[in-house]
Amino acid sequence: MDVIHGRSRVVIERVTPCLDGGRFPVKRTVGDRVTVEADVFTDGHDVACAVLKSRPVGTTLWTETPFAFFDNDRWRGSFIVSQVGGYDYQIEAWVDHYVTWRRDLAKRIDAGQDIRVDLEIGARLIDAAAGRAKGDAQKELKQWAGRIRAELTTDIGRTVCTNEALSQLMLQFADRSLASFSEQIYQITVDRERARFSAWYEVFPRSCSAVPGQHGTLWDVIEYLPYVAAMGFDVLYLPPIHPIGTKFRKGKNNNPSAQPGDVGSPWAIGAAEGGHKAIHPQLGTLDDFAALVAAAQTHGMELALDIAFQCAPDHPYVKAHPEWFKARPDGTIQYAENPPKKYQDIYPFDFETPKFKELWEELKSVFQFWIDRGVKIFRVDNPHTKPFPFWEWCIGELKAKHPDVLFLAEAFTRPKIMNRLGKLGFSQSYTYFAWRYSKQDFIEYLETLTKTEAHDFYRPNFWPNTPDILTEQMQHGGRPIFVSRVILAATLAANYGIYGPAYELCEDVAVKPGSEEYLDSEKYEIRQRNLNADHSLRELLSVLNNIRRQNVSLQTNERLRFHHTDNDQLLAYSKRTEDRSNMLLTVVNLDPHATQHGFVTLSLDEFGLHEGSTYQVCDLLTGQSYTWHGARNFVQLNPHTVPAHILQVRP
Amino acid sequence: MDVIHGRSRVVIERVTPCLDGGRFPVKRTVGDRVTVEADVFTDGHDVACAVLKSRPVGTTLWTETPFAFFDNDRWRGSFIVSQVGGYDYQIEAWVDHYVTWRRDLAKRIDAGQDIRVDLEIGARLIDAAAGRAKGDAQKELKQWAGRIRAELTTDIGRTVCTNEALSQLMLQFADRSLASFSEQIYQITVDRERARFSAWYEVFPRSCSAVPGQHGTLWDVIEYLPYVAAMGFDVLYLPPIHPIGTKFRKGKNNNPSAQPGDVGSPWAIGAAEGGHKAIHPQLGTLDDFAALVAAAQTHGMELALDIAFQCAPDHPYVKAHPEWFKARPDGTIQYAENPPKKYQDIYPFDFETPKFKELWEELKSVFQFWIDRGVKIFRVDNPHTKPFPFWEWCIGELKAKHPDVLFLAEAFTRPKIMNRLGKLGFSQSYTYFAWRYSKQDFIEYLETLTKTEAHDFYRPNFWPNTPDILTEQMQHGGRPIFVSRVILAATLAANYGIYGPAYELCEDVAVKPGSEEYLDSEKYEIRQRNLNADHSLRELLSVLNNIRRQNVSLQTNERLRFHHTDNDQLLAYSKRTEDRSNMLLTVVNLDPHATQHGFVTLSLDEFGLHEGSTYQVCDLLTGQSYTWHGARNFVQLNPHTVPAHILQVRP
Repeated sequence: MDVIHGRSRVVIERVTPCLDGGRFPVKRTVGDRVTVEADVFTDGHDVACAVLKSRPVGTTLWTETPFAFFDNDRWRGSFIVSQVGGYDYQIEAWVDHYVTWRRDLAKRIDAGQDIRVDLEIGARLIDAAAGRAKGDAQKELKQWAGRIRAELTTDIGRTVCTNEALSQLMLQFADRSLASFSEQIYQITVDRERARFSAWYEVFPRSCSAVPGQHGTLWDVIEYLPYVAAMGFDVLYLPPIHPIGTKFRKGKNNNPSAQPGDVGSPWAIGAAEGGHKAIHPQLGTLDDFAALVAAAQTHGMELALDIAFQCAPDHPYVKAHPEWFKARPDGTIQYAENPPKKYQDIYPFDFETPKFKELWEELKSVFQFWIDRGVKIFRVDNPHTKPFPFWEWCIGELKAKHPDVLFLAEAFTRPKIMNRLGKLGFSQSYTYFAWRYSKQDFIEYLETLTKTEAHDFYRPNFWPNTPDILTEQMQHGGRPIFVSRVILAATLAANYGIYGPAYELCEDVAVKPGSEEYLDSEKYEIRQRNLNADHSLRELLSVLNNIRRQNVSLQTNERLRFHHTDNDQLLAYSKRTEDRSNMLLTVVNLDPHATQHGFVTLSLDEFGLHEGSTYQVCDLLTGQSYTWHGARNFVQLNPHTVPAHILQVRP
Repeated sequence: MDVIHGRSRVVIERVTPCLDGGRFPVKRTVGDRVTVEADVFTDGHDVACAVLKSRPVGTTLWTETPFAFFDNDRWRGSFIVSQVGGYDYQIEAWVDHYVTWRRDLAKRIDAGQDIRVDLEIGARLIDAAAGRAKGDAQKELKQWAGRIRAELTTDIGRTVCTNEALSQLMLQFADRSLASFSEQIYQITVDRERARFSAWYEVFPRSCSAVPGQHGTLWDVIEYLPYVAAMGFDVLYLPPIHPIGTKFRKGKNNNPSAQPGDVGSPWAIGAAEGGHKAIHPQLGTLDDFAALVAAAQTHGMELALDIAFQCAPDHPYVKAHPEWFKARPDGTIQYAENPPKKYQDIYPFDFETPKFKELWEELKSVFQFWIDRGVKIFRVDNPHTKPFPFWEWCIGELKAKHPDVLFLAEAFTRPKIMNRLGKLGFSQSYTYFAWRYSKQDFIEYLETLTKTEAHDFYRPNFWPNTPDILTEQMQHGGRPIFVSRVILAATLAANYGIYGPAYELCEDVAVKPGSEEYLDSEKYEIRQRNLNADHSLRELLSVLNNIRRQNVSLQTNERLRFHHTDNDQLLAYSKRTEDRSNMLLTVVNLDPHATQHGFVTLSLDEFGLHEGSTYQVCDLLTGQSYTWHGARNFVQLNPHTVPAHILQVRP
């Protein structure tokens, strides 16, 4: 206990938001209003006053906003984060003797007491404030003190108690010499909007050629852009585009021995041609890449690169920096393993190397290399197999220089590990969405993601498929399951993505029963498709992404609410803006095989409706309108036509 | 992010117990087993190991106990706090390459792989451990490494995987060079048992004379001790024993002007004869006080003094240290106020004085003065009207020197303020018990006190009455309410107290309707009673305190559980030891006017019973035994005989 602060009588505790005692910043996006709360109280009967202070990280001047009592010693204030980067916030509170005096004076007057000594006490408090003020304010305060002393009446007492201008001046020049401060300066990471609201499309560049059998190039990706843009996606995510190792290269369908002509896995990074800062020669050059970045921008899209920190045995790092890898007693380098499984085509970095600082710097420079070439979004492969302190440092350093850069964590592992990655700095995270099937699954999982502390640091990105994940359910639900899953992803989460064109073409054949791997996976071979197939979901995706753009309630995970249905195959949930100017109710038939019907019972307060209300709901997927009455309304959904309603609710 | 710790790969987070991020210590009593939990995990597939480290504050050597996984990345360990004072605890965790190697080796052997290189890797890990060991351990480890290299077979691999002695040695000399530590060293305040389990009896010494009309003395209190001891109380708490101010002295029934002979309020501390370190001349001398301390001890009781940091206008401090008080513009000293009410017999200290350090030291020296005279328990009057930083400093300093000293906070105010006082160091706290009447009241309040974080810092002391509190309920329930309230207090809370002899004599007349003040309150006059009145509860109190002493389950607030009853006037709850060797079920009729009956439905798991069980319940108040079957049993309680059962449950 520092005796210096012994006269700071106000206690400020239980500040929220606050992650792990302030150890990590909370996340927000530009334009958000940040609401801060704390318990604030002091000893005795004196009045405490407080302000909420905020500032962009790296600046010194605080902006102050009111921080006021609302209930049970809980106080609240808010401010808007108007720029990308870090923000600090802190609470300052003090015993305000003037406000205390004013409150007590009113009581003394009401009780008919002699207040002459009290008026002099007040005049002295005003004198002191005048001493802290300058110019007109000082003059005005001096006049008030003079007037009080000249009159010394109940009338002047009453005037002082009620004069708003004087109160404002006294607040402005309050005596804060004994102020208390929240025990820390808390931090916020403020990202650009795309961190909160994005639609991702993953495509393998080498599959993009229109010429049968030909290895795609970055120029083929440029040709492919209009197709993706027409579907309304705004992030085009490319698996690694670097040279691919030849030693221990995997063949088609993950065959341990590649055949001549096999293209290998893009995640086996590095070959004679270069490593993480090089482009696969068959894809193109850095100039081609610059053209792709520019073209994507023209189509309103952004490129996301895959960063996988691991090396093929022929990666240049292996020769140049053997100290970054673990040596085996037989002189070979330790390949990746999950004993007894061996992944001899991959060398993991040894993050325990005494040369870890050089390794860290080099890995950071990989991001920097691509940032310098216009990339602002990275999908990070398996971050949970590299040390957490590395990521916290690396992302921290990069965001300090480039606060608009975003990182998606591809960690499919245990929840606390995924959370830690979110807390330490990843902007978005993959989730368990792909394996949530039942109504109860969805409700529990979404409540965890959106109604708990996770909401402050974990931005879920919902993917119904990835090149690694073709769930059992997707393998057996046909086109209806592809439709319903993408509607769920796009309306439950503000960030979602698909791995295409496998998704829109409803590819659902696994390499073998019980596996979630695709047959003839693009991870190991080039796949070209007919994008114009009749069964393609491209039209639906276009409509869906357009609905997301038109309806701001879908652009955040705030105010997600589930509603009761009397049929376990019907999932109903709403999102709305705070002011209820945009309200969407989505009802999904979870059964891909049969028409399901039942009654939805809305929590009407969510929509500002009541039991007697009649209101319109308009299905944004079909354009059909319905008139609904009260809470309980009938719904019927045929999976073979459209397995969901996305209803705009108009009271 | 400190790059130095970049290779410490294990994450340790969400440590419990942990108050406000480690800002405050948690409370325990001597002999308690402290269970610590944390989330512990590392990147990748390597195995993490951890230890829980603890030590008395001020010592440097840690004692290590196991800290092990139990569920969902949550780990747990425990240690016993065996001495009074502060304890530190911390968690240390590291990636253990030997344990990882051993786990993987077993898998390789099972898969029939060539393990020769792996055995050499293991031999090197054992070599390294040998380098950290000495003597026999070193020799043994070197032998193991030699044997592995000599044999290089699957058999020696299997032996290494299963040899317990080798595992223990390798754990003992594990490579912790890259260990992680919990982000803080957390603290525990360990008090003596009386902090957790005590029965208080408050008495006004000046009322203790057996001679009618005579001012009692400390020797009269000595005479009074056997009476209190016979009732089984172990803390005798005396209101302030200091000289009482004469200026603005209050008369009987708080009359603003005292009459000649009026003795004044003991809380108006200080007069010409002295202040907080003096004894009221009519009570006696410091020698008499020493005799009282010794006599109390002889009777198995301890004295608790009342510390009220405020001054009567004639307190010596007022003249000696005018800088410790607030001056008014008219030259007078600011008296206590709650406008428009004035308390001119009391001067509060001005804790904002620039001389606050001298004031703090002096106030601390008041405690020290009485500690030096054998007092180890203090009931602190209105701590919430003095600054929180003062108490944290004062209690911290005193407990560092005298860890066996206990402080009871008499703060009847808003919950967060009462909690803060508990967190910053008060050993026990008064509660809202007196105003909890209904079954739902009790359940909610006790769950808050015993099942939330409050349990770690707030030790409730339940008082059915105090000289300031004669609740409405006590005024109208007659003797039955006095019986039931004290049974509730003594069995719900391990710490409880009564203000006697007002309590055992069932004094229930308020000064006026709507007031909780006693008529002819002892705060302002001497009151002498017939302690042998027929209606006295002294026998009941004796039985009750004896039950508490015989049944360890009542000596803690752990494992309090409420049970269902089908009658809102019947409250049923149990306490039990962890091993169920002592189990008590208390059932109280909350209605002081009428017999109530109904069925109690026990949560049988609490008692290790099941629906088919037949078991004995023996009423410790009456000696009667009953045979109960299964969960649902009938109870009937007449408030005019005994309004409660305290049933010992014997399966």
